[in-house]
Amino acid sequence: MAVATTQTLQELCVNSIRFLAVDAVEKAKSGHPGLPMGAAPMAFVLWDQFLRFNPKNPKWFNRDRFVLSAGHGCMLQYALLYLTGYDSVSIDDIKQFRQWESKTPGHPENFETPGVEVTTGPLGQGIANAVGLAIAEAHLAAKFNQPDLTLVDHYTYVILGDGCNMEGVSGEACSLAGHLGLGKLIALYDDNHISIDGSTDIAFTEDVSKRFEAYGWHVLHVENGNTDLDAIAKAIAEAKAVTDKPTMIKVTTTIGYGSPNKQGTADAHGSVLGPDEIKLTRDNLGWEYEPFVVPDDALAHLRQAVDRGASLEAEWNETWAQYKTKYTEKAAEFDRLLSGKLPDGWDKALPTYKPEDKQLATRKHSEISLNALAKVLPELIGGSADLTHSNLTELKGSGNFQKGHYENRNVHFGVREHGMGAICNGMALHGSGLIPYGATFLIFTDYMRGAIRLSALSQAGVIWVMTHDSVALGEDGPTHQPVETIASLRAIPDLTVLRPADGTETSGAYKVAVLNANQNRATLIAFSRQAVPNLAGSSIEGVAKGAYAVIDSDGAPDLILIGTGSEVGLCVKAAEQLTSEGTKVRVVSMPSWELFEAQDAAYKESVLPKAVTKRLVVEAGITMGWQKYAGAEGDILGVDRFGVSAPGGKIMEKFGFTVENVVARANALLG
Amino acid sequence: MAVATTQTLQELCVNSIRFLAVDAVEKAKSGHPGLPMGAAPMAFVLWDQFLRFNPKNPKWFNRDRFVLSAGHGCMLQYALLYLTGYDSVSIDDIKQFRQWESKTPGHPENFETPGVEVTTGPLGQGIANAVGLAIAEAHLAAKFNQPDLTLVDHYTYVILGDGCNMEGVSGEACSLAGHLGLGKLIALYDDNHISIDGSTDIAFTEDVSKRFEAYGWHVLHVENGNTDLDAIAKAIAEAKAVTDKPTMIKVTTTIGYGSPNKQGTADAHGSVLGPDEIKLTRDNLGWEYEPFVVPDDALAHLRQAVDRGASLEAEWNETWAQYKTKYTEKAAEFDRLLSGKLPDGWDKALPTYKPEDKQLATRKHSEISLNALAKVLPELIGGSADLTHSNLTELKGSGNFQKGHYENRNVHFGVREHGMGAICNGMALHGSGLIPYGATFLIFTDYMRGAIRLSALSQAGVIWVMTHDSVALGEDGPTHQPVETIASLRAIPDLTVLRPADGTETSGAYKVAVLNANQNRATLIAFSRQAVPNLAGSSIEGVAKGAYAVIDSDGAPDLILIGTGSEVGLCVKAAEQLTSEGTKVRVVSMPSWELFEAQDAAYKESVLPKAVTKRLVVEAGITMGWQKYAGAEGDILGVDRFGVSAPGGKIMEKFGFTVENVVARANALLG
Repeated sequence: MAVATTQTLQELCVNSIRFLAVDAVEKAKSGHPGLPMGAAPMAFVLWDQFLRFNPKNPKWFNRDRFVLSAGHGCMLQYALLYLTGYDSVSIDDIKQFRQWESKTPGHPENFETPGVEVTTGPLGQGIANAVGLAIAEAHLAAKFNQPDLTLVDHYTYVILGDGCNMEGVSGEACSLAGHLGLGKLIALYDDNHISIDGSTDIAFTEDVSKRFEAYGWHVLHVENGNTDLDAIAKAIAEAKAVTDKPTMIKVTTTIGYGSPNKQGTADAHGSVLGPDEIKLTRDNLGWEYEPFVVPDDALAHLRQAVDRGASLEAEWNETWAQYKTKYTEKAAEFDRLLSGKLPDGWDKALPTYKPEDKQLATRKHSEISLNALAKVLPELIGGSADLTHSNLTELKGSGNFQKGHYENRNVHFGVREHGMGAICNGMALHGSGLIPYGATFLIFTDYMRGAIRLSALSQAGVIWVMTHDSVALGEDGPTHQPVETIASLRAIPDLTVLRPADGTETSGAYKVAVLNANQNRATLIAFSRQAVPNLAGSSIEGVAKGAYAVIDSDGAPDLILIGTGSEVGLCVKAAEQLTSEGTKVRVVSMPSWELFEAQDAAYKESVLPKAVTKRLVVEAGITMGWQKYAGAEGDILGVDRFGVSAPGGKIMEKFGFTVENVVARANALLG
Repeated sequence: MAVATTQTLQELCVNSIRFLAVDAVEKAKSGHPGLPMGAAPMAFVLWDQFLRFNPKNPKWFNRDRFVLSAGHGCMLQYALLYLTGYDSVSIDDIKQFRQWESKTPGHPENFETPGVEVTTGPLGQGIANAVGLAIAEAHLAAKFNQPDLTLVDHYTYVILGDGCNMEGVSGEACSLAGHLGLGKLIALYDDNHISIDGSTDIAFTEDVSKRFEAYGWHVLHVENGNTDLDAIAKAIAEAKAVTDKPTMIKVTTTIGYGSPNKQGTADAHGSVLGPDEIKLTRDNLGWEYEPFVVPDDALAHLRQAVDRGASLEAEWNETWAQYKTKYTEKAAEFDRLLSGKLPDGWDKALPTYKPEDKQLATRKHSEISLNALAKVLPELIGGSADLTHSNLTELKGSGNFQKGHYENRNVHFGVREHGMGAICNGMALHGSGLIPYGATFLIFTDYMRGAIRLSALSQAGVIWVMTHDSVALGEDGPTHQPVETIASLRAIPDLTVLRPADGTETSGAYKVAVLNANQNRATLIAFSRQAVPNLAGSSIEGVAKGAYAVIDSDGAPDLILIGTGSEVGLCVKAAEQLTSEGTKVRVVSMPSWELFEAQDAAYKESVLPKAVTKRLVVEAGITMGWQKYAGAEGDILGVDRFGVSAPGGKIMEKFGFTVENVVARANALLG
């Protein structure tokens, strides 16, 4: 490469991105310069010529969504946010890259940096989030657009790398995107042939383009992504023109482009270039500017995004004003969704039950609640990873979300749990008030844990509907029986986990979940396969507090039985027998640890008084963590082993979940 | 379909499989008849004409491996095991399908039923296990076969369904299999167009064959898999002939074939057909036999497998005898591997350290241990999911396991954590003494939890090497920082989790892991990114007991500090200060809960005496579960929140992991 003593405006812009990344990584002594250096041209073309956004209002509804799925290259995104005039990232923020309390963390975090749509870094999540963003757009467009007024109309763009394309979660999501024909999803694949271990030749030699064609995508190739900006622009324009299929543009680039000794090697991926190599890179690319200095021409050009963005939003506001006049009812609904208001009295739709009501599985109660909510909450949209009729998650008033029927709310995710998870996160983070839910068997949260964790971290208001929640599911055996699963989900910070005991508690759990979703919090609810009794003492209000007495003794209890989910009914029966034998028993239903911990000390003491040290916890799962509530003198009846294949009732009996055994363990405690 | 009043021998055999499945599901009132009915022809052809196995010695080394990746169709496999003469499944076992303590659980479990190679059911695992089985075969063949004597030579066959093909884990593993050119892997894809939610048209319309071609597989199609047995046989023969690529044979079938009202629908998938429909199916297929009755001709034909298998094994034994004579050294090694003996004194290779030795990250100690072990344990084989130089898992004496170099031991899995997990399980369950290891960042166990759980459940002796084990990893931020991860792994039954504190404990952890692997137990070890001091009191023997004092007071301690991993060094420093202030302190390093729980009561009391109630646990992870060891009067210094992006030292300081804070918390406890 020759030294470029003069640079075109485009080169100045592209190199501004490159050197902000190089210098920020160098200053932090940590980070990934290679991707920004290689992907700067495609990112520049996209943001400069195509991406519709308003830097001064990062949340403008109709903006195009941009996702950097290769999140380690986040300096690319921070550079663009700064250069195009977002207030969220100043040059000082870039100098604080990866430092304590900075706005520029080591991977893009939507909850830290306005302008970042989703949280990426764990590879493959971003592209799958993008499928969710595109689903949200398609759904809202189908619901709200009118022949004469197009209110919802944006693209979702993604930059992803080899790493993303190796991950199964991306394959799952992209297969579904192809099936659904999400034409406004455009992925730019930074084909740089390098992953951390070296050349992709050592592990990844598949034909990615052909694979995406197999998924039903429109596939393009830019052969020289390093300098052929026109080819990039032409490809994006062509991608936009194909509206019935998502497009994957393979853009062949050189990782660490411009670094004489490191470009095209894994050395450029995740380490600082070092001062010597940076000097050589500056010489090589003819970059005469000091660190963190952006040439005026480049900044002025890129900052045109501010005026452009204001115009785009103003134009849309005009459409929106007309829409409000002509389609008042739909406009009110759209306005409600965007402003994050739930309809008045929505929770009245949730049923409560009396003991004489028919015993149902809580998954059946879940179906009833979901369908009741669907009538009053049009923002509820979701489905199952191919277990619709086991999870009981079909919204009966709606058809299937399919190509040509994007207005429908039943999404069939296929047997793609991890993809479903990341897609639901994307739908929630679309920021348009949608409340997505995703369902599978509880055990298969193991397949989608990456996405569930990110729902909690990235403040995605998703409802995870998980059925078949214990060994009581029976014959399918240990591969399908959760035992450690609830505990391992309770472990995830900022995730509310609930295990309702009956129909009323199911309603309570959904009330919590919807309120959580509305506040951008994720919730997971575990439901039984088997029927459970409706308890006299259960309540929606009790669920909201995480734990409460469903049966109480006359006077201070001698013993507290603490149960969750299907085991609360067992505790109640055992309590009846213990009471008949003269023991004063309280039964505490504890559907949610997190909600209970959020209560004040007085409430906690009222439910679990310190003075009552004889406590027996009953849950058909591992005992880990229950010591906190059982206390030093308490006992825990759990399942500290894998399950077995047999009828569920037989397993529960063999594992000691019988009235006799609970009574015996209680009496042993009482001494 | 016309009623077949007379049936060919082949039809009798195929229908025997079908009706054993139908009748077993009906008797159990639970199960999946649809797949066995549709896949019976391909399974019959495979087992009858191609599969080399010895029913009377299910563990015969050189058998072809058969994996039913669509594990819900397990009655297919049980029927074949019974019909071909395995002792593990009698007709009475089939009548006990899915019952308590039966040999015929609801999904295939290798630890319950000899003849079943791996545990399937969670979709996609089986095909990925099969890639591991094929890798094991390729590796051993490259190592042991001689120009004149072929000792290792078997195929790995899989039947997988639409569900498996939708799962990301299968995509990951199959992409790698294509890259590696595993020519002796043959997958039969039961293309029945039905998943649980109905037609695959609603969620899965990709071109699967084209996708596999993109992966580099040899792809074939049998258009009529219901009745064209010759075409199936021809395809398998063709697959065997292509030895440089794995083969995927798409076999188009009808789910529930033969059931007039349910075939070709999701109703046939996972529910009993019911007595009426069974009668109609019997009429339709001309099946005049009572439930569980197999016509003599069919049984006699299929039982020929017993003699055939004996001959195959005898023939191989002849080769083996020659091999022992001609290649004594290699034969001794092969014999050692198959007999499950570790070399004498192998553990002497593990280093120990003194306090004056250089402070290293435990991931660096892991590298040293792994490489030391690699010299004495040729059965050690594995690698990383594209983080080789971060996880530090390269075996320096070996090259890369690649097409044409299958004798090498460094496997580059690519960015495919879940695939890596299932592949390692397959390598372990090959049963040939290999000790596979798989590595990534600890946080990404979330991506592969499905496979880690199965390693524990299915007794796969894998070593999971997980680095970057706390928020101290620093700048990569909360998406990369485990906080709940160790706890959620400890939750998995039968998985030994270790978090060593220094170099010597790292050796101790590997000693545990290798012994575990040798006993078919899975182990996960968590290593630090950052350097840690070598402790005076650490020991290999202490690690084996799960917890032990690394510093003890003179006389009964006033206080016990309990730490794990990188926090033990912090506890030691805090203890020094507390001691200098006159407090009697014991520091307990607790690398493994599971190992400590396995000790007798006296040992446990000696380490954590009940009388010492002032206990402070220090671990840079969530506090959940530590209450058990902290006790009612103890305290826990943990991280009950997501991490942040900043330098690791800064985070640890801000989160309270300082000598000052540990001392302060300890003094607060002492009152």
